[in-house]
This record gives sequence, structure tokens and C-alpha cells, in this order.
Amino acid sequence: MSTASTTPAELFNAANTAKTFAYAPYSNFRVGAALRTTSGRIFTGCNVENSSYGLAICAERTALVKAVSEGFREFTDICVTTDLTDKFCSPCGACRQFIVEFGLDITVHLCKPDGSSQITTSGRILPDAFTPADLKLDRVKA
Amino acid sequence: MSTASTTPAELFNAANTAKTFAYAPYSNFRVGAALRTTSGRIFTGCNVENSSYGLAICAERTALVKAVSEGFREFTDICVTTDLTDKFCSPCGACRQFIVEFGLDITVHLCKPDGSSQITTSGRILPDAFTPADLKLDRVKA
Amino acid sequence: MSTASTTPAELFNAANTAKTFAYAPYSNFRVGAALRTTSGRIFTGCNVENSSYGLAICAERTALVKAVSEGFREFTDICVTTDLTDKFCSPCGACRQFIVEFGLDITVHLCKPDGSSQITTSGRILPDAFTPADLKLDRVKA
Amino acid sequence: MSTASTTPAELFNAANTAKTFAYAPYSNFRVGAALRTTSGRIFTGCNVENSSYGLAICAERTALVKAVSEGFREFTDICVTTDLTDKFCSPCGACRQFIVEFGLDITVHLCKPDGSSQITTSGRILPDAFTPADLKLDRVKA
Ligand SMILES: [Zn+2]
Ligand SMILES: [Zn+2]
Ligand SMILES: [Zn+2]
Ligand SMILES: [Zn+2]
Repeated sequence: MSTASTTPAELFNAANTAKTFAYAPYSNFRVGAALRTTSGRIFTGCNVENSSYGLAICAERTALVKAVSEGFREFTDICVTTDLTDKFCSPCGACRQFIVEFGLDITVHLCKPDGSSQITTSGRILPDAFTPADLKLDRVKA
Repeated sequence: MSTASTTPAELFNAANTAKTFAYAPYSNFRVGAALRTTSGRIFTGCNVENSSYGLAICAERTALVKAVSEGFREFTDICVTTDLTDKFCSPCGACRQFIVEFGLDITVHLCKPDGSSQITTSGRILPDAFTPADLKLDRVKA
Repeated sequence: MSTASTTPAELFNAANTAKTFAYAPYSNFRVGAALRTTSGRIFTGCNVENSSYGLAICAERTALVKAVSEGFREFTDICVTTDLTDKFCSPCGACRQFIVEFGLDITVHLCKPDGSSQITTSGRILPDAFTPADLKLDRVKA
Repeated sequence: MSTASTTPAELFNAANTAKTFAYAPYSNFRVGAALRTTSGRIFTGCNVENSSYGLAICAERTALVKAVSEGFREFTDICVTTDLTDKFCSPCGACRQFIVEFGLDITVHLCKPDGSSQITTSGRILPDAFTPADLKLDRVKA
């Protein structure tokens, strides 16, 4: 599950398994994610909710913080899957922002539970993104 | 400042004034926002940061929660302005998600400090958005 | 509603009215808050949820960002009320952190819908808080 | 590092190593955490920040979502360490809320970089916590 030649199917399978660990007692909306590093490692994630709803952390962000906390910051692909049978469900805006922190060219696989998918990129789902570079641009004096 | 005939200039001025109230001791990156309801009321916002960085609330979300807490949930325009002189700075992904909760057709004005602007919409800056309707679609059994 | 001699009952009434504006379609858990500045102004808040649950903003934080965005940063009291009949419901940890950014001695009124209350302080409900000062203490070299 | 007989020193060492992976380009405030499951597994975490400051995820929450996403929801201890030489730095309010979702009796180890520590519990650092049970209590009709 962690070679450089990961297939989209392997990535989906990893995300789909991670989904089973979702802690989603409030939304009952399970999400799984699988993130692939440039070196071919896969990190999975699920959503983890909280009784104070605003503290919920999505599957995509879970996968990203796992990878970062193990020393990985460069990624090629992220796969997201939910329980929705008729929609290629896309990450929420917060996750899109979290993903683009690590690159605008990360391939994003949106997968239905049956494994069928649509492919896009981190930059395309957050056009004209706010990025780390923006914090360093010229400003007027406060 | 609260009639149905608000001009983009009035909206910018409101956002620009709100920016002066930014509580941004950590980023020193000030942001102002002004939100217009369908009835012509304007609600302004600034960013409010926290020593635990993850608790920061952006200017756009501040304007939105203000409006909602006064009984307004329908909006026509939101204007965002920063101190960046050379960029029409766009909302972060979290704010885009927060905006689309209230509609995909809200006009978004991205303004430089000199008042020049680019115009887009909430739906265009969060393509294929995750929305309230998604929570109600058909699912596979968990 | 905005003189220096606000009574706890007035603060509760403001919070209780704000609760009616809660946008809580996911939790159906309505919360209202009312914040008093040192100058006697009152700012109210309600919870505002999102289909991406993690983006929800609580009533207490709504009241605080409203006040800050109007130029106020010093507060004497915050009142919180929910629909729970049998519990003096306390702010979530995120809100406690957001409140202590503005002081450890803010009086916190926990109110039932009938107006009965318990009183505590921001510092007591977040003992040994992480505060802005912590970011400036001596560190080992990274 | 993952037997039932983990010592506090082992937990600190795991947290201290995780700290080196912190992605904290904005605060330069590195935090490491190590979480112990009831079965003796250790999951580590570091803080992961974002150019939109409000999206930062703390070390403690990173450790928790990692564990949950691997199928673990019962914990005995969490250790937190920063670079502060003179303070036993405590979790932010958001993390305290995230921890108590999984129990009020989790031992919390606050460690300086030299490994010296203070011990408390999740319930003691979030007194009168808002918990999952609160969402199910009796309410007045909306
Ligand atoms: Zn998300
Ligand atoms: Zn934002
Ligand atoms: Zn809260
Ligand atoms: Zn934290």
C-alpha cells in the first residue's frame, strides 16, 4: 500500500476502508480520504466530529495532518469518498484551503462508494486561492 | 449605508473602515468585509485572531455571523478588502464554504485598498461546492 | 440596553432574544449570547452552523467578533443561554479560548431558558489557560 | 513504543520527536503530542498551520484524529510538549474540547522540553465541560 506505483484503485480502497473509522455521531455522514506522498506513502483519514460541531475535522484534513506529523509535506494525490451513491462529493472549502497549503497541483479523486471517480486538482477546486505567498506581498501601511 | 441602492463604492468604504478594527496581532494581516442583505442592510466584519491560531475568525465570517444574529440570511453582495496593494485578494476556502451556505449566487467584490475591484460570485470561487443539499442525498448503508 | 448599569436580567433577555436567530439546522441546538463591554454596550450572538460541520461558529464567538468589529475589545460580562431546561450549559472549549483572549476576569453567566443562572469567570472555566503571553515566553532553539 | 506498559518518559519522547515535524511557519511555535490508547498504542501529533490562520490544527488534535482514523477511541494519557523552557504549557480550549469528547478522565501530561512534567486530567482542565450528553438533555420547545 505504499509503493510509488499506487493505482487509483488502491487509493480508493484505502480511503474506503478509512471511512469505516469515521467518528460521525452527529452528521452520520461518513467520509474517508487517502493521501499519497511524492515518495509513494499513503496516509488515510476519516472525519472526526465533536459535540461542539465547529470542532469537527474532516477526513481530508485528518489525512494531511497525519502525513505532516510523520514528516511528509509533498503530495501527488488525494482521494475522497463518502456514502453518497449519486454524487462525486467534493471537499468542503476548509479542506480545499488546507490542501492548497501544500500545493495547487495535487490531483483530487472524487469517488463514489462503488469506486467510480471524477478527477480534478487542488487548484481547480479553489480558483484564485489564498496561499502562503499572499502573506508576503506588498501592503499599504496600517 | 443601508438602503436598497447601495453602490459598490459604499460597500467598499464600509469594508475598508471595518478593516481598521481588525484584531490581527499575530498575522498583522488586516482584512475588512462588508455584506449586503437582500433588503439593503450592510453588515461589516474584520478578522479576529487568537493566540491559538486555529481559532481565528476571518472578516467575511464575522460579517456573516453578525447578519445572521440580527435575523438576516439572504444576501446579494459581499466585499472583501485587505492591505495588499497589488492583489485582488480572495477569501480563504473556509470563508467560501461559509458564504455558499447562504447561496451560490452572491456577488463577491475583491477590492484593493485603493478601491479598485474584481467581481466574481460565491459559486464561482467554490466550484462544485459541498452544500446543505448534499447532506440529504441518497447513501449506501453504513 | 446599552448603559453602564446593565442588569443580569437585561443581559439574559438580550441573549435569549438572540437565541431566536440561531441558524442551527444541523444540531437543532440553539444558543444565544450577550456580551457587555466595559463601556456598557451590549453585543449579542447566536450559533451559525454550516453543512461542513467544522465551520460552525458558536453564539459566544459571534458576540465577540461583532464587538471587536465595531471597535470594542474590553468586556465585563458574557451571558450564555440554551434551550436546556435542567442544565446551566457552559461554553465549549473553543469559545472559552476565544473569550480568554480578551481577559481572564470576564464574568460568565450561564442561564437556563427561565432566566435562572450560575455565575463563573472566563479564567475559572479555562484553568491554566493558553494565553497571548505564552507566545512570547523563552524557548529552546528549534 | 506501543506496549501496555508505556512509561511517561516514553510518552514524552514520542511527543518530543513529533514536535520536530511541526509545520508552524506562521507562529514558529512548535508543539508535539503523544496519545496513548487503552490498548497501549501510541499516536503522535504536531501542529499544522495554514496561511488562513483559522485553519491551523494543534498537535493534540492531530494525535487524536490519527488514532480515531486507525480505529481507536479510548485513551488513557495524552502528553503535550512545546519549546517553552519555563512553562508547563497547557492545551488550548479547542483541544481540551476535542479531548473531552473521548473522556473526562484522560491523564494529561504537560511537559517542558527537558522532560519535566505536570500532570492533570482532561476533565480538570475543562471544568463543567460541554459534552456529547448535553445534546440529549431535555429542552424547551424552539
Ligand atoms: Zn472538509
Ligand atoms: Zn477566511
Ligand atoms: Zn463554543
Ligand atoms: Zn489546541
